Amino acid sequence: MPAARQKLLNAALAVIRTKGYSATTVDDLCAAAGVAKGSFFHHFKSKEALAVAAADYWSEITGALFAAAPYHTHADPLDRVLGYIDFRKSLLAGKVPEFTCLVGTMVQEAFETCPPIRDACGASITGHAAKVEADLAAAMTRYGLRPDWTAESLALHTQAVLQGAFILAKATGSAAVAAASVDHLRRYIELLFKPTSLKKRGHT
Amino acid sequence: MPAARQKLLNAALAVIRTKGYSATTVDDLCAAAGVAKGSFFHHFKSKEALAVAAADYWSEITGALFAAAPYHTHADPLDRVLGYIDFRKSLLAGKVPEFTCLVGTMVQEAFETCPPIRDACGASITGHAAKVEADLAAAMTRYGLRPDWTAESLALHTQAVLQGAFILAKATGSAAVAAASVDHLRRYIELLFKPTSLKKRGHT
Repeated sequence: MPAARQKLLNAALAVIRTKGYSATTVDDLCAAAGVAKGSFFHHFKSKEALAVAAADYWSEITGALFAAAPYHTHADPLDRVLGYIDFRKSLLAGKVPEFTCLVGTMVQEAFETCPPIRDACGASITGHAAKVEADLAAAMTRYGLRPDWTAESLALHTQAVLQGAFILAKATGSAAVAAASVDHLRRYIELLFKPTSLKKRGHT
Repeated sequence: MPAARQKLLNAALAVIRTKGYSATTVDDLCAAAGVAKGSFFHHFKSKEALAVAAADYWSEITGALFAAAPYHTHADPLDRVLGYIDFRKSLLAGKVPEFTCLVGTMVQEAFETCPPIRDACGASITGHAAKVEADLAAAMTRYGLRPDWTAESLALHTQAVLQGAFILAKATGSAAVAAASVDHLRRYIELLFKPTSLKKRGHT
């Protein structure tokens, strides 16, 4: 990838997560990237085109981050799911714009006014959920669950909790409330798959 | 409340939930409200001041909506909590901008750049959660729960799920995914308070 294009995409991740998509100007992005405006329009025909590329770039770099995470080595698929949740919790560090989600932020603003951005953000979220779904489906088989919910719906629910936890973190200025919500998500999945284990440990 | 001020606040609810806070201009709000720009600045010194007033107005009208909802009549506080969740699910109807949350949308954009908006949105979310917390705390007492989580954290978690469910609805253009996430939230609370009831009904 040309250096200027990469710098602009990295700038988009930082600036849009700090001030939102609509408030971010092409000038903001050029200043943060340290590139000239002509260079911006050489690589992207518009701010909207940059946003779509940034959503795809976000899918790519977060995909690599999660692919390299340690939880995949667990033999039990439920341990992989719980390891994924623990990994998500471990990412709730630093300043709020650093741990919150580019595509959740952009789709919140642009879902109605800009279908290409909505679709790129939607593909990023559902594509990530599909990886969680695979481990959930394997865990349902392993634990003999035949519930009235699907692995897909539970995988999407994990993403709803995370996206909502980010909003609470933004509203309170603290990662702690997001971490507590992720703890509730973990407890729910444990209760679904091992309903007696938490009782034994005195959790409920 | 003067008619123009009320029209502008109602316009803010509709326009900001459709296109986001930053993308909404004073002209957009005046056009949607059918009031002149001079009238806007008679009532609000800036778009930011309107947003803070709109967050407070949102707290007021949603507060009245929930206060009048039928779930409060249940004698068992757990039934009030589950009734609240069912009521939230029933609100997931119509077009996405009609059922999603003004303050969750605004705080997503303005949390870092506009502290007065962040604080008004935060107060709206945590104030609403406090009402759920009261019923959760009563249910914990009634069911003899002494868990390692608090009624406050579970109440905030209900709001995280709802806010995240709205983002999934925006990403997919459908209320169905949000409703499925609310179903998972309901199931979690049932498992926490009545861990055997869902087993009997074959839910897990």
